[in-house]
Amino acid sequence: MIKNDLFLRACKKLPIERTPIWIMRQAGRYLPEYRAVRDKHDFLTMCKTPELATEVTIQPIDIIGVDAAIIFSDILVIPEAMGMKLEMIESKGPKLYDPIRNIQQVKSLKKIDPTKDLKYVLDAVELTKKELTNRVPLIGFSGSPWTLMTYMVEGGGSKNFSEIKKFIYNQPEAAHQLLNLISENVADYLSAKIEAGADAIQIFDTWGGILSQDDFKEFSLQYIQKVISLIKRNDEPIIVFAKGVHFLLNELANIGADVIGLDWTMDLSEVRNKIGDKISLQGNLDPTVLYANHEKIKEEAIKVLKSYGNGNGHIFNLGHGILPDINPENVKHLVNVVKEESKIFHKQ
Amino acid sequence: MIKNDLFLRACKKLPIERTPIWIMRQAGRYLPEYRAVRDKHDFLTMCKTPELATEVTIQPIDIIGVDAAIIFSDILVIPEAMGMKLEMIESKGPKLYDPIRNIQQVKSLKKIDPTKDLKYVLDAVELTKKELTNRVPLIGFSGSPWTLMTYMVEGGGSKNFSEIKKFIYNQPEAAHQLLNLISENVADYLSAKIEAGADAIQIFDTWGGILSQDDFKEFSLQYIQKVISLIKRNDEPIIVFAKGVHFLLNELANIGADVIGLDWTMDLSEVRNKIGDKISLQGNLDPTVLYANHEKIKEEAIKVLKSYGNGNGHIFNLGHGILPDINPENVKHLVNVVKEESKIFHKQ
Repeated sequence: MIKNDLFLRACKKLPIERTPIWIMRQAGRYLPEYRAVRDKHDFLTMCKTPELATEVTIQPIDIIGVDAAIIFSDILVIPEAMGMKLEMIESKGPKLYDPIRNIQQVKSLKKIDPTKDLKYVLDAVELTKKELTNRVPLIGFSGSPWTLMTYMVEGGGSKNFSEIKKFIYNQPEAAHQLLNLISENVADYLSAKIEAGADAIQIFDTWGGILSQDDFKEFSLQYIQKVISLIKRNDEPIIVFAKGVHFLLNELANIGADVIGLDWTMDLSEVRNKIGDKISLQGNLDPTVLYANHEKIKEEAIKVLKSYGNGNGHIFNLGHGILPDINPENVKHLVNVVKEESKIFHKQ
Repeated sequence: MIKNDLFLRACKKLPIERTPIWIMRQAGRYLPEYRAVRDKHDFLTMCKTPELATEVTIQPIDIIGVDAAIIFSDILVIPEAMGMKLEMIESKGPKLYDPIRNIQQVKSLKKIDPTKDLKYVLDAVELTKKELTNRVPLIGFSGSPWTLMTYMVEGGGSKNFSEIKKFIYNQPEAAHQLLNLISENVADYLSAKIEAGADAIQIFDTWGGILSQDDFKEFSLQYIQKVISLIKRNDEPIIVFAKGVHFLLNELANIGADVIGLDWTMDLSEVRNKIGDKISLQGNLDPTVLYANHEKIKEEAIKVLKSYGNGNGHIFNLGHGILPDINPENVKHLVNVVKEESKIFHKQ
């Protein structure tokens, strides 16, 4: 039994005494304790060494006091396991060599067996579960098929996303074939993570927001739905965070997820009114508010709580990952503010 | 009298026989004729030499056949005129030296007199008007106060917009003082452009979409409204293009603009339903569709026309600036498709 299961109850819209909070990229560079590990090991070594991944996964539970852990890893371990060469280049971001540009390359990519190809992640999940001693739930995650394909075709980050757009407009069949393969891999990977002990799953659709609404439906939404339908789970909740996707929220609420994550440009109260109470919402403080003083942070956190309003089904988070130069004291302050100030929204 | 005034009539929701089209950044690198000029002169020299600015402004009218010209210039000429040192660094984007970070720096910036400090732009407008021989209208433009302040505080482009966010959260009074000064400068600059012959104005709020809704109201929207209220004009229409601003559209429609520009993630029909027929809409084809073949370009262009639907008040454009590696033949094709296929939406 997990001692603090507020996060899991909030995902299921069950009664809670206060709003739970966790923070995207909470195991990250803003923590000196993380940097101390990172200084000794490169990023991918940390992902691939269960002891190191476990250590940094648990840091924010001890130091910041968040209500859930999220396994330290990277979404690009899947393309690597599918056969692409991955490198993390300091201060430049990820690089995938020989980016996918045609059907022959798509055909050369493999269907993964996560228990072999990504065993190190499953080992990290198991070890983390053990070391967490059931204090808080553990979240496993993956990129969405669209977001992973974007990286695989661009070969890394991108400014204008020219290559991925050329690919879907000029080779739509190849794109759909690749998306189907990625979807199966993501589903197997997430099922294996649950099997290894993950209590919840978050799917990051980081690049869904670069698409028009029709293209989002065709190239992203249906594949997230496919992943969700294929995941083997008991009652582990699934969160979909589609950054920049301000549209088709009713459709997004109907693909089988338990929670929608929202970025800071969205109005929680508007979204809640629109899609009704069928699904929980996660978010959505502007990550840069953590640059402000404690008073302003408190004011803005309360604004987010008020925006969601009374009742269950809200998980507090930032609207995007925490930035690396944030002062950890400000994060602790935020967590304390949310824990204290949210009680009033959960009175019977 | 302007011979082809379809664009101006569309801005005012007057009857038109077909939908007019122009393209953001239409005077740009995708045109070999532009690159031929650019190869001989640096970017700022082109902005500051009326003959060169006029030449590239008129190129897309002759070559592509768009229904409006937009004066070749850059939004950062205003910060430069206010006293900042501006440099355009090849393939790296703009750099503003000694970025603004405190109230003392704000106080050191000057109120501009556009007839002196930006005379070269006004000369370019006058010369272009002359050389256009009234074939199509000429659009003048500016960045919004928020977007200009973002560049002035960041010192150029940005990934996380950390500095501008620190500035507004920790020094809001300095930010508002700077926004007021920029607003007056932008209004005077745009009034002078109209005086020099500009037939319409577009205000680019390129960075409005990085703000939460409350912050957008406080730091961007009210200053665009201030600019519009201060501009001296007869019936020259004003377009506001706030990229990524998918929220507060009713508020945006009520600040005195004639047209709202929309990016490609928006649904024209939804927006038209929401804000009613009080204002025209401009947009919003995904710029990367121009990487596709002619058939797909036609299909997607018709989708945009259908999305707006029957009746006046639509100006066709991309949802963002055209990318530099687009084939001009594809752009000509798009223009022809819009000219031909839009007639049916304007039958009485």
